[in-house]
Amino acid sequence: MNKIVADIKELKVFLEEEVKPLEAHLLNGNYDALIPAMANFRRVARESSFWNFPMPREFGGQEMSLEDFAPVSELLGTSPLGHFACNVQAPDIGNMELLLHFATDDQKERFLKPLAAGEIRSCFGMTEPEHAGSNPIIMSTSAKKTDGGWILNGHKWFTTGADGAAFCIVMAVTNPDEVPHKRAGMFIVPTDSDGFTLLRNISIMGDAGMGYFTHGEILLTDCFVPDSNLIGNPGDGFKLAQNRLGPGRIHHCMRWIGIAERVMEMLCMQAISRQITPSKTLADLDITRAKIAENRARIDACRALVHQVTAKISGGSTERAGISTIKFLAADMLMKVVDDAIQIHGGLGVTDDTLLSFWYRHERGSRIYDGPDEVHKLVVAKEELKKYTAS
Amino acid sequence: MNKIVADIKELKVFLEEEVKPLEAHLLNGNYDALIPAMANFRRVARESSFWNFPMPREFGGQEMSLEDFAPVSELLGTSPLGHFACNVQAPDIGNMELLLHFATDDQKERFLKPLAAGEIRSCFGMTEPEHAGSNPIIMSTSAKKTDGGWILNGHKWFTTGADGAAFCIVMAVTNPDEVPHKRAGMFIVPTDSDGFTLLRNISIMGDAGMGYFTHGEILLTDCFVPDSNLIGNPGDGFKLAQNRLGPGRIHHCMRWIGIAERVMEMLCMQAISRQITPSKTLADLDITRAKIAENRARIDACRALVHQVTAKISGGSTERAGISTIKFLAADMLMKVVDDAIQIHGGLGVTDDTLLSFWYRHERGSRIYDGPDEVHKLVVAKEELKKYTAS
Amino acid sequence: MNKIVADIKELKVFLEEEVKPLEAHLLNGNYDALIPAMANFRRVARESSFWNFPMPREFGGQEMSLEDFAPVSELLGTSPLGHFACNVQAPDIGNMELLLHFATDDQKERFLKPLAAGEIRSCFGMTEPEHAGSNPIIMSTSAKKTDGGWILNGHKWFTTGADGAAFCIVMAVTNPDEVPHKRAGMFIVPTDSDGFTLLRNISIMGDAGMGYFTHGEILLTDCFVPDSNLIGNPGDGFKLAQNRLGPGRIHHCMRWIGIAERVMEMLCMQAISRQITPSKTLADLDITRAKIAENRARIDACRALVHQVTAKISGGSTERAGISTIKFLAADMLMKVVDDAIQIHGGLGVTDDTLLSFWYRHERGSRIYDGPDEVHKLVVAKEELKKYTAS
Amino acid sequence: MNKIVADIKELKVFLEEEVKPLEAHLLNGNYDALIPAMANFRRVARESSFWNFPMPREFGGQEMSLEDFAPVSELLGTSPLGHFACNVQAPDIGNMELLLHFATDDQKERFLKPLAAGEIRSCFGMTEPEHAGSNPIIMSTSAKKTDGGWILNGHKWFTTGADGAAFCIVMAVTNPDEVPHKRAGMFIVPTDSDGFTLLRNISIMGDAGMGYFTHGEILLTDCFVPDSNLIGNPGDGFKLAQNRLGPGRIHHCMRWIGIAERVMEMLCMQAISRQITPSKTLADLDITRAKIAENRARIDACRALVHQVTAKISGGSTERAGISTIKFLAADMLMKVVDDAIQIHGGLGVTDDTLLSFWYRHERGSRIYDGPDEVHKLVVAKEELKKYTAS
Repeated sequence: MNKIVADIKELKVFLEEEVKPLEAHLLNGNYDALIPAMANFRRVARESSFWNFPMPREFGGQEMSLEDFAPVSELLGTSPLGHFACNVQAPDIGNMELLLHFATDDQKERFLKPLAAGEIRSCFGMTEPEHAGSNPIIMSTSAKKTDGGWILNGHKWFTTGADGAAFCIVMAVTNPDEVPHKRAGMFIVPTDSDGFTLLRNISIMGDAGMGYFTHGEILLTDCFVPDSNLIGNPGDGFKLAQNRLGPGRIHHCMRWIGIAERVMEMLCMQAISRQITPSKTLADLDITRAKIAENRARIDACRALVHQVTAKISGGSTERAGISTIKFLAADMLMKVVDDAIQIHGGLGVTDDTLLSFWYRHERGSRIYDGPDEVHKLVVAKEELKKYTAS
Repeated sequence: MNKIVADIKELKVFLEEEVKPLEAHLLNGNYDALIPAMANFRRVARESSFWNFPMPREFGGQEMSLEDFAPVSELLGTSPLGHFACNVQAPDIGNMELLLHFATDDQKERFLKPLAAGEIRSCFGMTEPEHAGSNPIIMSTSAKKTDGGWILNGHKWFTTGADGAAFCIVMAVTNPDEVPHKRAGMFIVPTDSDGFTLLRNISIMGDAGMGYFTHGEILLTDCFVPDSNLIGNPGDGFKLAQNRLGPGRIHHCMRWIGIAERVMEMLCMQAISRQITPSKTLADLDITRAKIAENRARIDACRALVHQVTAKISGGSTERAGISTIKFLAADMLMKVVDDAIQIHGGLGVTDDTLLSFWYRHERGSRIYDGPDEVHKLVVAKEELKKYTAS
Repeated sequence: MNKIVADIKELKVFLEEEVKPLEAHLLNGNYDALIPAMANFRRVARESSFWNFPMPREFGGQEMSLEDFAPVSELLGTSPLGHFACNVQAPDIGNMELLLHFATDDQKERFLKPLAAGEIRSCFGMTEPEHAGSNPIIMSTSAKKTDGGWILNGHKWFTTGADGAAFCIVMAVTNPDEVPHKRAGMFIVPTDSDGFTLLRNISIMGDAGMGYFTHGEILLTDCFVPDSNLIGNPGDGFKLAQNRLGPGRIHHCMRWIGIAERVMEMLCMQAISRQITPSKTLADLDITRAKIAENRARIDACRALVHQVTAKISGGSTERAGISTIKFLAADMLMKVVDDAIQIHGGLGVTDDTLLSFWYRHERGSRIYDGPDEVHKLVVAKEELKKYTAS
Repeated sequence: MNKIVADIKELKVFLEEEVKPLEAHLLNGNYDALIPAMANFRRVARESSFWNFPMPREFGGQEMSLEDFAPVSELLGTSPLGHFACNVQAPDIGNMELLLHFATDDQKERFLKPLAAGEIRSCFGMTEPEHAGSNPIIMSTSAKKTDGGWILNGHKWFTTGADGAAFCIVMAVTNPDEVPHKRAGMFIVPTDSDGFTLLRNISIMGDAGMGYFTHGEILLTDCFVPDSNLIGNPGDGFKLAQNRLGPGRIHHCMRWIGIAERVMEMLCMQAISRQITPSKTLADLDITRAKIAENRARIDACRALVHQVTAKISGGSTERAGISTIKFLAADMLMKVVDDAIQIHGGLGVTDDTLLSFWYRHERGSRIYDGPDEVHKLVVAKEELKKYTAS
């Protein structure tokens, strides 16, 4: 524990000195300056062992449990560049954990190793524009068996970081006649494969981004993938995805709490510095204070529950309803804190001069991606009602 | 820990078998039947060591820490009779803790002992109708020194359980010229003292109650109290009150979580049993399910934070802002769960045929007593803003 | 219009001088004093033509349109005794309008005339404890044809004002094999009929009430009703009920706006008079001011829409979705204003010393009776979606 | 009235056929295609008399009262290009009305005439980055008297449409020693004046825009303005601004209702077309339906109140509190409808493929510009409390 606390202090210095000064480039969409600068602080992070925290040491990590990673991830979340700086950004960290547990030695050598080293990036192709993203068992992308491999055809979107990624882990229907949960398989598709096309970086809330900071729309047209690139067995896709999504949602929650803390800091700083009369600042209004208190309560209650659920999972429990609970609770918390901070900032709050606009826009998706609020609420309610309907 | 889990199981049986069957009397205001029945289950509780949990063994308790008491108190909260059954009801438990730590041996003998034994009840006279209840340093009740004692004059209300109490701990101004926090003292005033008058049991939300289930309005008219009934020194009142109020608020939060869990159970039971068409119940509607999930999230997040704050206090921290946070968070949570449960119950929800009406009415005060939401939010915000204004 | 404005001024004086001074009896449940006093102010109202406003002059009314009645009803709503004072209280005014339009001359003579004269009271038996009250086509009460009349058997509740009523208009299934909307008929059942039993005045939110201020539970056991007491034809019940419920909901909305205005007055008066420091009142806090403004917006927007819908209905439109919209909007508005006013009142707000507790308790049902929010929302959404699904 | 209804039908056709097809250019930031296309539909609008609706006929308008303009403005609001198409966009329409009422004949000739003809655009420089935008009496921009004119120095931002505007109406302190409300004057500053610099088009929520679709930051450095460009007298600025802001806020409210209706259409269309299972769409969920109904109620109540306040103003009332009420009510309504529509759209909702993202981003400011919610609430509360504090 003391070790982690010490790490966190050093990590904080790293973020303040190396990472946060570059946020302005992201705000201004100045990717030409940002991308080489990020390469630099990623090198520093790697040399400082601020790298791949939950991965084994052989892959450059710290073997942190989900529970120990929680405060680290929260801290990284205070900058939109934090997770990427330490190579624990979605979807790469999720892909690394997936490959670590389920890939063949050959796959690990070819794909996990360079990914863990930060030499390449990856992406994950699951959601399809034609189907509600919340339902991972309904998909149209097909994988047909052929000699030595599979032929993939389909259409994916919201493939984060596809622009510049070396490979994409693609879910496709391998067993169309099976029960829904056993229909799909997972394939490692190099992005330079014939028939793999990045149609566009989808413009999200006014910004198509560049490189890692993108969400791609992808077309697979008779795209051949060799057998050696199938993860696990045909039909394993859904099981593997579940394995990947649970921790992924917890990672998001931790990151959102970090964002919320940074936003809270911005809110308070603005409140104490913005004069409304010569002798009064926004912080002197009890209406501002009520907002501060409500958001403090929101953040602290959310964190307490996230840590509780994380501890249970670290202890071996599955906690599906628990994960769904924190997913919609934390996303709601985040959007409320951000919205209040914008309001306190007045006109400045809607400009791209602060990070508030960035999060207001790019985290509105938090209530949608990895399952919209509505779906997670149904999961929680189903579990709750089971207590009263068991025979 | 295992010991506590075992206790909790037995305690649950006790509540189900001895206590909950009598709730109907409370619902119907049938105090004539309720009061002797309660005497009976309190005897059982005492014999079963379900008694005075946080008190030392010499006073019939289990020496439970605040942290260990949390799940017990939550369980007791599932019945409006639960805390009283086990002699840990407000304000008596607060008075016991106060006397335990600050009373003289003589005072303990005369007042704490019979109170801990459940032979008498007590009350606490702080709030005054003429002053905002949230500010314990503004009060008009005066204590003037006289030979061998003090002469008290004043007006108190919301003195819970005054009807039938043996004594009242009264706050009164002993040192009017001191700084605000050192003006008042605390007196143990036997309710049969000359000049101590219970004006009325205040009718609260349609119900004046009886005995313990009352909130009294009290007049002190030249009421003599001997020196031996002063707790601590003149001017100690505010310090003693703070000591009493912090844990008191946590006790309320735990109890409210218990209520919320019982209400959630009622909500779900109603949802699965209420048919809206021959083949469909309320539980089949996703709008019902969304409510269930939102309340599950609310309760769990609130509990997680309450336990976190409690653990810190058990560990010696003062956590003033933390207590204020959970106070307004838990009260808000409670009222929302109750309100949703009423809505799901339809017409039945507004009748006195279920406990929902009882809590809807008698816990609306949760957002007011022991400091209204607004005051606690200011405490939290002040603490938050300090982070940014320290020199 | 000038006539109405003049009437409203006089009516206001009447309410202030004759009606409001008696509210304390209602607050204290002092029905023994209240009931004769009400007889007195009802006499005054009748003599002053503050009576039966929407009824024809031959029945003692003013022939007011729904639109003209709106501001009158709002004003009456400012006192919980207002509508009753002027004989326009639910369910009697609804029953009068029903009888006016659909009763035989003989029925009018026997039932409408004395009701309009205020000599008797009536009630309306529709909701059944066994079925969701929101669905008027599902009911178990049966009416079997027999010589010269019908035999009624069934169980009703939430029969407002049954205690002391001279007759009850009962809905019962006359044509069980018909389509749902044509199954029931409406019967005028004298409450002294054999087989008509008032089981109890249901205790609602801590108060069973007396006389008009009650909600009864009723048992019909082989209760004979002569043919001459059937309103319209067998099977007309649902159609007649719809006719009655639409305006009834508008009446409620108007009344709720009146309550909200009175509550707003109480809120503001408390804010300006409650000192929190020697130089500051609650009204000096911007958090109080924000609440005041939000409730002013809520009330005014609600009233504007209620008047708009009412004008359309006065103009002949059916406005089913419009009525549903204002029903749930106004009920929500009311409960929010009341809740905020309680919070501003602090401890006093939960006592029965002010009307706030009365409305908090007795209008919680506003979101439930005459169709719960959830049902009205479905009506509105269905209408909205029709715009996009019409062939 | 029939005339207006007829106009509205034709106007709707114009919007559908000429304007809405070009919205995609705005979504994609394709200003190079948009700007010439807009010139075209503005020509059509002018020829069709869909132009300058509230202006006198001599300035190409229809002399519409504020009340008659309400439904027109709502309709225009259904497209982000609507108001601009008809030359009634902020700030130009506000500037036109200002010049119409307060400019000299010479000023009208030079500035109003070409503006009304749509030959030039204008902007309005009031808000300053150094001061809370909500307080028009605190400003640093100074105007010092010199021979034949004034020397302006200062810093303005959120100057909508400054990019490409021919002139800017600038507020600057002319009488620093006067009482606050009489300190500033208003100047017509040609944007090609020496010392008038457009520092940047502020990037707002990810988009700096171009031409009309911008918000500028402006520096005034020893900028000379001739006496003939002063509107009214020195010190009149605040009075003129109030005159301009009141109707401006109503215009915004009408436009927001139009946006809300378009968003509601998008929400419903998405709900009925998005399949969640082979036999079920989002519109089949009662949770979707509840959202639809709540937003229908929100929009309709808001519109009813906006029309009521507008009618009073058309009738000569000042309605300052009324305007503040609808300002914060409508902005809140708008943001809620947009947010719910995004949620219903899922992933698509956060992309720039629909207008939802545009409004989510560019109307977040609605709760801030022309006075933040908090300030308008204080105005409303002050007025409300006056009812109870008048001597």
